[in-house]
Amino acid sequence: MSQKIAIGKIAVLLATLTEDEMDPFSSTLKNVKYCQGKVGSMNMQKVIAAVETAAKRHSLIHDSQYRETHALYHAIIEGIEGVTRGQTAIGEISRTVGLRFAIVRGEPYTSEEEGEWIAVAFYGTIGAPIKGLEHETIGLGINHI
Amino acid sequence: MSQKIAIGKIAVLLATLTEDEMDPFSSTLKNVKYCQGKVGSMNMQKVIAAVETAAKRHSLIHDSQYRETHALYHAIIEGIEGVTRGQTAIGEISRTVGLRFAIVRGEPYTSEEEGEWIAVAFYGTIGAPIKGLEHETIGLGINHI
Amino acid sequence: MSQKIAIGKIAVLLATLTEDEMDPFSSTLKNVKYCQGKVGSMNMQKVIAAVETAAKRHSLIHDSQYRETHALYHAIIEGIEGVTRGQTAIGEISRTVGLRFAIVRGEPYTSEEEGEWIAVAFYGTIGAPIKGLEHETIGLGINHI
Amino acid sequence: MSQKIAIGKIAVLLATLTEDEMDPFSSTLKNVKYCQGKVGSMNMQKVIAAVETAAKRHSLIHDSQYRETHALYHAIIEGIEGVTRGQTAIGEISRTVGLRFAIVRGEPYTSEEEGEWIAVAFYGTIGAPIKGLEHETIGLGINHI
Amino acid sequence: MSQKIAIGKIAVLLATLTEDEMDPFSSTLKNVKYCQGKVGSMNMQKVIAAVETAAKRHSLIHDSQYRETHALYHAIIEGIEGVTRGQTAIGEISRTVGLRFAIVRGEPYTSEEEGEWIAVAFYGTIGAPIKGLEHETIGLGINHI
Amino acid sequence: MSQKIAIGKIAVLLATLTEDEMDPFSSTLKNVKYCQGKVGSMNMQKVIAAVETAAKRHSLIHDSQYRETHALYHAIIEGIEGVTRGQTAIGEISRTVGLRFAIVRGEPYTSEEEGEWIAVAFYGTIGAPIKGLEHETIGLGINHI
Repeated sequence: MSQKIAIGKIAVLLATLTEDEMDPFSSTLKNVKYCQGKVGSMNMQKVIAAVETAAKRHSLIHDSQYRETHALYHAIIEGIEGVTRGQTAIGEISRTVGLRFAIVRGEPYTSEEEGEWIAVAFYGTIGAPIKGLEHETIGLGINHI
Repeated sequence: MSQKIAIGKIAVLLATLTEDEMDPFSSTLKNVKYCQGKVGSMNMQKVIAAVETAAKRHSLIHDSQYRETHALYHAIIEGIEGVTRGQTAIGEISRTVGLRFAIVRGEPYTSEEEGEWIAVAFYGTIGAPIKGLEHETIGLGINHI
Repeated sequence: MSQKIAIGKIAVLLATLTEDEMDPFSSTLKNVKYCQGKVGSMNMQKVIAAVETAAKRHSLIHDSQYRETHALYHAIIEGIEGVTRGQTAIGEISRTVGLRFAIVRGEPYTSEEEGEWIAVAFYGTIGAPIKGLEHETIGLGINHI
Repeated sequence: MSQKIAIGKIAVLLATLTEDEMDPFSSTLKNVKYCQGKVGSMNMQKVIAAVETAAKRHSLIHDSQYRETHALYHAIIEGIEGVTRGQTAIGEISRTVGLRFAIVRGEPYTSEEEGEWIAVAFYGTIGAPIKGLEHETIGLGINHI
Repeated sequence: MSQKIAIGKIAVLLATLTEDEMDPFSSTLKNVKYCQGKVGSMNMQKVIAAVETAAKRHSLIHDSQYRETHALYHAIIEGIEGVTRGQTAIGEISRTVGLRFAIVRGEPYTSEEEGEWIAVAFYGTIGAPIKGLEHETIGLGINHI
Repeated sequence: MSQKIAIGKIAVLLATLTEDEMDPFSSTLKNVKYCQGKVGSMNMQKVIAAVETAAKRHSLIHDSQYRETHALYHAIIEGIEGVTRGQTAIGEISRTVGLRFAIVRGEPYTSEEEGEWIAVAFYGTIGAPIKGLEHETIGLGINHI
């Protein structure tokens, strides 16, 4: 692949690994902008809002620009499709999620023309709204920005 | 989470990391059965077959038993929903995938009663059927077995 | 329910029961037009064609009229969504079906104004393309005609 | 089919037939565990909860075990996909359901190795939230447990 | 196409054009029944209700007849699938819509047998629940009635 | 809406209207790049390829740049979701389409920062693979580019 920086892989590792486990990969973080967060909810709006708020607070997107909001929104929704696998719904069908997420913005391709892209990764649990009745889940969305 | 072994995380790392990068995580592999593979195709049947064949060859499932075939099949399809995000189709809508995958079987929960579960993770690229016109993608499916 | 004839239930019984088991329900067949058929395939087009051909051969729809073809087509697709549960695909995702089907046309409602409706029911197996690696499945679609 | 007990067919009959109509099929109930229930709602969470509660009250699943909760949940969702045909939503898109349901647990296959499976069937009406503006619907989900 | 009246095109123009822009197409309105409306919401039920209410108020459908309610409902849902492109949800996934809609009822086909059909078109914006963070969207559903 | 140019509306009119009908709207075409085309097929890959080829031939996108190919691809798929309403499939479920399409690239927003966006509109017929057994359909996809 003609990619110099795998922003998707970096986002997945940031969402999945502990701080210590992330150590050997710290050099990959030099050439990207990124942030991390956590959200637990039966309400998809809260999951989306948590990622959007984190992206704006860490200046990963221009918050008054629709262009970047649009790019991020579709990356979030695509990540959520991995998390929910089949129905983009949680509470409506009696599921709850507990997720760590990471947003990574950078230039993945060798050619400068390809410009910046954004990756949103989720990792955590999905299951019944009862502690323990849950299994792991992951999702990754990528978009040009 | 009352999980002792995160089989989903292990599967994601096996599918995503190089052999060297996997080194610090090698101890997590002691208490699970696992295998890895690669598949590139515009044909979803080939992707599914590659995973099923790898699972049988490495004795991760009983190959003549429907029960285990059924558990694996649904884990594969859920992983593919993360990879394709929205339509469970590749060639039909002019996309191709180049994927590494990992299958992990183990006992994720502290309670012995919960028994064995299986995780299928994919990591690689999805895009136009032209080299380079592609971005990263990931998927994870988990099922009781 | 203000229904005098449950065409959906009749279609489901016709698709599910043997001829002997159907005996106690034979009186329900007096006030409807119906036909039955069988199809086994990994190709959805063949499943759809089998139902459409049966409907035309038994004069359950006008075969040159788009209006009735359209009503039947949507009833078939809705029945198939029950059979496939989640992806309207079989062979593309390595599944095969072996189905009995029934088409029932009648006036389900007490009010004459509600006119004729059509029900399409499927019952059989879905699974891996290997005999025995399969479980039961059902689907029912209903439309005004 | 190498099935000795068609748990899906039994569940469909239990959800569809009246007590009297069920009489000729009573012998099929000897070798399975089963229960029946009713639920009417515009809220999918209530439909799911009604089935889960019935399953636990009649000891069809271990209520503290995630493994069995997980198996039942996916069988319910697959049954609901037949009921809703296309969008796994009811109230959100202005539909209401009035459903009878049945849960059947047993050993469908001749080979003892295949173990226990669970079937969830729904039968009733779906339509506008106004009495009479509705038609029949059915759904069946099956899973290994 | 053996259509004499393109009810779908008429509905799309009515939903998309201003009154002045519609002038050159006014003759196409002679042979159909139609109405127009507007709705802005994060709640899909309100969108559906707005179209159903407009249809009944302008006598485009019999309001006590399920047959016609059923035909209209499916045309609305199909139009909404164009508007939402992928998930039939708005507020649940943090989107809002501002839509103009048009309903057209007429006989599109040369053959009298084909009878009446109904078209529902939407045109407007979809986006974040913040003014300006939105782009255009369209949808069209057609059904026999 | 803070849009100065409705690229979606322009694309829909270009796909829907005849050359003569388009006359009153010719001034809207001055500030955008656009092209038109036609495609009829049971094969979705051909529909996608027809739009991509037209876009490249008319220099609406850089053909060697993935960024723009990616933006166009998602706009096409979103347009197709309007055309197919529910399943992103045509031939697999026995449907054929006859479509005119238009691609419009321009700066829809007043703020210069919002940059260029692309709209893909389809209008035509969808139905059984028999002439006349078909009804109208429309779809619109919009993306930042």
